[in-house]
Amino acid sequence: MATLIGANRPQRTDRNAVSRAFDAVRRATDGICAPLEPEDFTIQTADFASPAKWHIAHTTWFFETFILEAFEPGFQPFDERYRVLFNSYYQSVGEQHPRPKRGALSRPSIDRIRAYRADVEERVRKIIQQAPETDWPTIACRIELGLHHEQQHQELLYMDIKYNFSQNPIGPRYAGTRPKASDEAPALRWKRFDGGLVDIGYAEDGFCFDNETPRHKVHIEPFSLASRCVTAAEYLEFMNDGGYDTPTLWLSDGWATVCEQNWRAPLYWRHGDDGWQRFSLRGWQDFHTDMPVVHVSFYEADAFARWAGKRLPTEHEWEHASTGVPLRGNFVENGLLDPLPAKPGEQSQMFGDVWELTSSAYSPYPRYQAAAGALGEYNGKFMSNQTVLRGGSCVTPHSHVRATYRNFFYPDQRWCFQGFRLAANG
Amino acid sequence: MATLIGANRPQRTDRNAVSRAFDAVRRATDGICAPLEPEDFTIQTADFASPAKWHIAHTTWFFETFILEAFEPGFQPFDERYRVLFNSYYQSVGEQHPRPKRGALSRPSIDRIRAYRADVEERVRKIIQQAPETDWPTIACRIELGLHHEQQHQELLYMDIKYNFSQNPIGPRYAGTRPKASDEAPALRWKRFDGGLVDIGYAEDGFCFDNETPRHKVHIEPFSLASRCVTAAEYLEFMNDGGYDTPTLWLSDGWATVCEQNWRAPLYWRHGDDGWQRFSLRGWQDFHTDMPVVHVSFYEADAFARWAGKRLPTEHEWEHASTGVPLRGNFVENGLLDPLPAKPGEQSQMFGDVWELTSSAYSPYPRYQAAAGALGEYNGKFMSNQTVLRGGSCVTPHSHVRATYRNFFYPDQRWCFQGFRLAANG
Amino acid sequence: MATLIGANRPQRTDRNAVSRAFDAVRRATDGICAPLEPEDFTIQTADFASPAKWHIAHTTWFFETFILEAFEPGFQPFDERYRVLFNSYYQSVGEQHPRPKRGALSRPSIDRIRAYRADVEERVRKIIQQAPETDWPTIACRIELGLHHEQQHQELLYMDIKYNFSQNPIGPRYAGTRPKASDEAPALRWKRFDGGLVDIGYAEDGFCFDNETPRHKVHIEPFSLASRCVTAAEYLEFMNDGGYDTPTLWLSDGWATVCEQNWRAPLYWRHGDDGWQRFSLRGWQDFHTDMPVVHVSFYEADAFARWAGKRLPTEHEWEHASTGVPLRGNFVENGLLDPLPAKPGEQSQMFGDVWELTSSAYSPYPRYQAAAGALGEYNGKFMSNQTVLRGGSCVTPHSHVRATYRNFFYPDQRWCFQGFRLAANG
Amino acid sequence: MATLIGANRPQRTDRNAVSRAFDAVRRATDGICAPLEPEDFTIQTADFASPAKWHIAHTTWFFETFILEAFEPGFQPFDERYRVLFNSYYQSVGEQHPRPKRGALSRPSIDRIRAYRADVEERVRKIIQQAPETDWPTIACRIELGLHHEQQHQELLYMDIKYNFSQNPIGPRYAGTRPKASDEAPALRWKRFDGGLVDIGYAEDGFCFDNETPRHKVHIEPFSLASRCVTAAEYLEFMNDGGYDTPTLWLSDGWATVCEQNWRAPLYWRHGDDGWQRFSLRGWQDFHTDMPVVHVSFYEADAFARWAGKRLPTEHEWEHASTGVPLRGNFVENGLLDPLPAKPGEQSQMFGDVWELTSSAYSPYPRYQAAAGALGEYNGKFMSNQTVLRGGSCVTPHSHVRATYRNFFYPDQRWCFQGFRLAANG
Repeated sequence: MATLIGANRPQRTDRNAVSRAFDAVRRATDGICAPLEPEDFTIQTADFASPAKWHIAHTTWFFETFILEAFEPGFQPFDERYRVLFNSYYQSVGEQHPRPKRGALSRPSIDRIRAYRADVEERVRKIIQQAPETDWPTIACRIELGLHHEQQHQELLYMDIKYNFSQNPIGPRYAGTRPKASDEAPALRWKRFDGGLVDIGYAEDGFCFDNETPRHKVHIEPFSLASRCVTAAEYLEFMNDGGYDTPTLWLSDGWATVCEQNWRAPLYWRHGDDGWQRFSLRGWQDFHTDMPVVHVSFYEADAFARWAGKRLPTEHEWEHASTGVPLRGNFVENGLLDPLPAKPGEQSQMFGDVWELTSSAYSPYPRYQAAAGALGEYNGKFMSNQTVLRGGSCVTPHSHVRATYRNFFYPDQRWCFQGFRLAANG
Repeated sequence: MATLIGANRPQRTDRNAVSRAFDAVRRATDGICAPLEPEDFTIQTADFASPAKWHIAHTTWFFETFILEAFEPGFQPFDERYRVLFNSYYQSVGEQHPRPKRGALSRPSIDRIRAYRADVEERVRKIIQQAPETDWPTIACRIELGLHHEQQHQELLYMDIKYNFSQNPIGPRYAGTRPKASDEAPALRWKRFDGGLVDIGYAEDGFCFDNETPRHKVHIEPFSLASRCVTAAEYLEFMNDGGYDTPTLWLSDGWATVCEQNWRAPLYWRHGDDGWQRFSLRGWQDFHTDMPVVHVSFYEADAFARWAGKRLPTEHEWEHASTGVPLRGNFVENGLLDPLPAKPGEQSQMFGDVWELTSSAYSPYPRYQAAAGALGEYNGKFMSNQTVLRGGSCVTPHSHVRATYRNFFYPDQRWCFQGFRLAANG
Repeated sequence: MATLIGANRPQRTDRNAVSRAFDAVRRATDGICAPLEPEDFTIQTADFASPAKWHIAHTTWFFETFILEAFEPGFQPFDERYRVLFNSYYQSVGEQHPRPKRGALSRPSIDRIRAYRADVEERVRKIIQQAPETDWPTIACRIELGLHHEQQHQELLYMDIKYNFSQNPIGPRYAGTRPKASDEAPALRWKRFDGGLVDIGYAEDGFCFDNETPRHKVHIEPFSLASRCVTAAEYLEFMNDGGYDTPTLWLSDGWATVCEQNWRAPLYWRHGDDGWQRFSLRGWQDFHTDMPVVHVSFYEADAFARWAGKRLPTEHEWEHASTGVPLRGNFVENGLLDPLPAKPGEQSQMFGDVWELTSSAYSPYPRYQAAAGALGEYNGKFMSNQTVLRGGSCVTPHSHVRATYRNFFYPDQRWCFQGFRLAANG
Repeated sequence: MATLIGANRPQRTDRNAVSRAFDAVRRATDGICAPLEPEDFTIQTADFASPAKWHIAHTTWFFETFILEAFEPGFQPFDERYRVLFNSYYQSVGEQHPRPKRGALSRPSIDRIRAYRADVEERVRKIIQQAPETDWPTIACRIELGLHHEQQHQELLYMDIKYNFSQNPIGPRYAGTRPKASDEAPALRWKRFDGGLVDIGYAEDGFCFDNETPRHKVHIEPFSLASRCVTAAEYLEFMNDGGYDTPTLWLSDGWATVCEQNWRAPLYWRHGDDGWQRFSLRGWQDFHTDMPVVHVSFYEADAFARWAGKRLPTEHEWEHASTGVPLRGNFVENGLLDPLPAKPGEQSQMFGDVWELTSSAYSPYPRYQAAAGALGEYNGKFMSNQTVLRGGSCVTPHSHVRATYRNFFYPDQRWCFQGFRLAANG
């Protein structure tokens, strides 16, 4: 059980506590969907961005498949056909409806999917209360995983809604406008770390994903880390200095991407009559250039760092540097849905605001072992071609993140709320 | 005026008659949409198939642009942004939202588009009643065109809904099941025509599209025409005889399409445990093999004809043969949404059931002249690479079709309700 | 025999005459290849342009397959593997090496292919002298066809060498420079034709391709035809007037091609510091703007005609107008490899200089019947999506062309030496 | 100088020794090309495989650009246009002819390129003898780099010739047949390593590439390494056990590649009537299944390891394990052009036979610093998305490899002579 996915004990084992957590996470998903029209739930404007409807069906499928099907006496699926329709990538569970065709499903309608959610929720609650004690530890562990899984899809909902809305020339707003932040970003400072043989990975007493384990030793050279993320103003300097026209600043694959995609700025930026604007979940906005730059790819972050004579931190450096930094920041609970300018201090923005790109390829930790069966497909099979991001963002639930948490995306992807912080040798 | 599009006089010039026609066609569109969920209105599952929502906005855009903008005093658009969003291909009117991205528009929602329809309808009705007499002939002509335009989109709605639903593994039904037709197709007979110098094109007193004009002389050799369309049973013989595996039966471009698309049967056929089934607007159905084969491309019809030792008729032969055949048949008003087996007789199914593929490339008639301005883009610019179809189908409004009517599709397209009838020399 | 391909009697039946014709055409092919390096024979820089080596092997394969295999006692192929390797598109003969991969064949080397040519030639000559009288009519007919086939590939050799060389930044020259033509194009004049019921198609006593038959009646409206082809100077006016920026001038498919391919000028034009230049078989050249424009697609010709308020002639109009025009002009025998400015007169350039684009889709003539077997694949299966060109060009052998000759290309293709002449109604 | 690319001292500084090394490497390139026809030099059958002609021009361009242009008084290029034509990817040097279009260059002919080689060689020899002492250290360092660069292209020549020939249905042979190896692979044994804090990277006194530096400490867990590479027989077991049909064995990106590319076996395998055959530089061969499997991608090696319950070694583990293993093996000097079965012993095949795939992403070593200028583009900019291979192959020059040598390819590439060795924890 402990090796299923959450390689450690779940945070909660008391049945009532699990039930409350279950309800809280499920209601949070509902809250995210509240401003959406039925049509908004349905569209898919890129292969990588799923319809909102699909997310909320899939997170229900997860509980139906791994809790109900495994533990409910006399289990009958809500709808046999959903097994394929809402399976994301679990080969062990069977066929999947192809990802780029999720937007082809006008049916089941959102009303029908809400009925699906309600039905499965009700039955999961029963399991929580009535499952025999022998099954309970496994069930508790899987529900924990299911809730963290749903939190990941909550973040994906924000990402995908933002992307889908950005593709509409009339620029719909998911949320209303807020007064523009007026804070200024503090000057950049550097904090030095001695390195040496350090411990990396999760070894505490709560939940974590299997890719954070096992805790192991890594040798790190002395390094320095910037006190805050790179701002939009700083990124504009790079752009104005010809960053997107200078191939020697870029990794070879990065430059190929710049040329193929005709990149001239981060995702969601457009240049209008009055200068640059950015698309947000509140529609098109003027810039507050002291905000951290967001929606840049690994390639862009890497090119900026080369231009600045610095580099990105490794994920080990980042994790080591985060030791002792309180897990506080601008998370989704703030309701801003945008990063904020940094606060003064040596280590601002380590958590929240933007996921921080690192230079580390997403690889298994030494002696990492994926679980057997479907849940073993959760993380391990993605360990190629992607890079690690750390620290959570303004659309991540606070309870979802840890210092050891490893997020991962392809180096050309940009629709995650991601930015970066510079590092330097010695 | 006469040269606008309808090259001849409109059928109706009385203001009340126009108003009634306007209301009738608009309500028919509403009727087609009645069974749809908001999600069904929104999806686009192929570049060629537009969302239902788009069709009903675009047909409103047509009246707003060509009636209100031209004739309404102090015209203000309902929403400035719709000018681009719902322009299909009128370069003279300005930019267009790209066709393959029509499914990216969750907003405006269907409710908002219904408000758009209601607003424009109300204002058009006012124009009909109040426009000065000097403008009226042009307005009447344009409304006539707009109504025929909307009828074309009514047929496209059926085509696109069918295609979109077919892409959903759960196979939604647009309409309920009906008892299976039990008629048998009569044996094939041939009717001989002498040919000679014949008149082709529209020259009567009602509405027609400009591509049906001018009426002109064509010299035709003697030929024979089959008494009915090729049936699904006959097409199955071709398939069972290796039709899709025999390159020598196909045009070169046709065979390339067979290989690239991996065609093994008409569109919407699938082979299950109990033999072939077909997808219809009533969901997956068993075959009634005496029905005409439908949803075959020009390439498939041409290959079948070669296999059968016959050929397709030219559009001139078809039009000449239709002289004196009453304009009756299985049109959309029947509500079947499927073709029916042929009736006995020398010339069954000439109108209705399925659009009939001809061997004629879609080219301008001698001395054809497209109108100046936007409405001149209606037909003329499509006169390359397409083939002509004749006679209307089971999803065409009866009032929309004429013997001289020229429909056109690319030779690899299949989602129109189209079949074919054989011809022979001499 | 008569229905094989050449639907009529071959021009030559005397064995010695056939032998001389065979040698003359084969030596002409050798002459075209004389300036090529082994590397030039091998490359393929576009799917549509075959390596020179492939052409000279394929024209030998044609004789080996249709003469030797059919009529040589105890036939053994020169190399069994060439049957697939050098089959172009004859499904009846069996598999084909894929066209886009012809450039993958470094072996057989050009030396080996020359040995293949020599061997097959020797054996064909023996057949010509020794075949029994009963076989001779068929053999003579097939050799006639084989020689016209080889002449088509001679023209393709020029087209493909030009295209391949144009793709090389160092712009190799196939032939040396010549003094620039100094003639001026005469002012455009119009010749009127009454039309009426005219005869179209070949019915004389020599060789023709099956697609020129049967001769049949066509009704033509009165029309006028320009006295010469459109010149480069006139085409420049169209360009300078924004021709490539004005969507309303274009067929819908044409405009899509302009946008996708980013067309700004005819193929082989480039704009350098000193104005426009064009690539020719003699390398990069300054313009002689009185030359007919060449290497424009059907779409470009059609857009120009619309801009000019005229249209392209139909193939019937062109053929009818050519009656009585002597079959003389600037053909390949001139050795110029470029078109020349028109001569004064009512009907200059009808033959030679540039293939003339017509508005006619390439369709079968009434009662056209392709032959049975492989040779029936020669023309018929290409009768969709292409347009007809007439009159031959500066790289066509004089003996290859007739007034009834129907050449055909796709409407977006440009690498043929093709231009156009305007027509008008009435 | 030291930081140019070779981060350490060149192996040779004596002018005569450099001159001899220069001649030896250049003559080796000539030797590889000896069996080629002019046509073989020219073709390009995949974007990743360059024409032989291009390789031998580019390796000359390297010396012309980095030696002659920098150090020859009054330097004039052999041909101005070659600067672009034969630049591979050095953005600092300027434009490059696009890689996928290298096969479009029939000119310059191979004869002309041989003249280019001879001219540049002669001039480099002069520089070697006559350069002032102050320049000499830099020149010696760059020539050293140029020779290692040319050795890399020697290996690419073998790879690309093999690939190009494999695409030809007649399967040309680069070299004659040899007697089939009869050795049997010894049973697999495991050697255990304690791990701990180990030193990784080059720190000796000769030449190395910059990506092997700086030497640094890495903490390794205890592990075991197989005594030899996985054999073709063992890989066949994986295939016969459904390896290519079992998605759960594969990385997600790997499985997507299997499906898209329709992989069923390693590259160059085909299944004929008598079982599996493989394409080699000696043409199609029956298998010697005790040979190491070769031409498998990282994805296939990773899937095999998962199937076998093992894993691939990291590059650190491999390098650590190679300590003390003599740098001997089946290199190109053997002339076999194929790997050999393993020899008995604890650590067979560590060098030569096949490049060994590791699980390590190709990333910069801590404090890695690419050089300034064009030569800094040599390695650093490829440090994303690729995986590291170690140990050299049967087509690698013996003098080219080191224990610290880091080769790298994309995880879906297979045309390198690459295989793999298993590792295990503890």
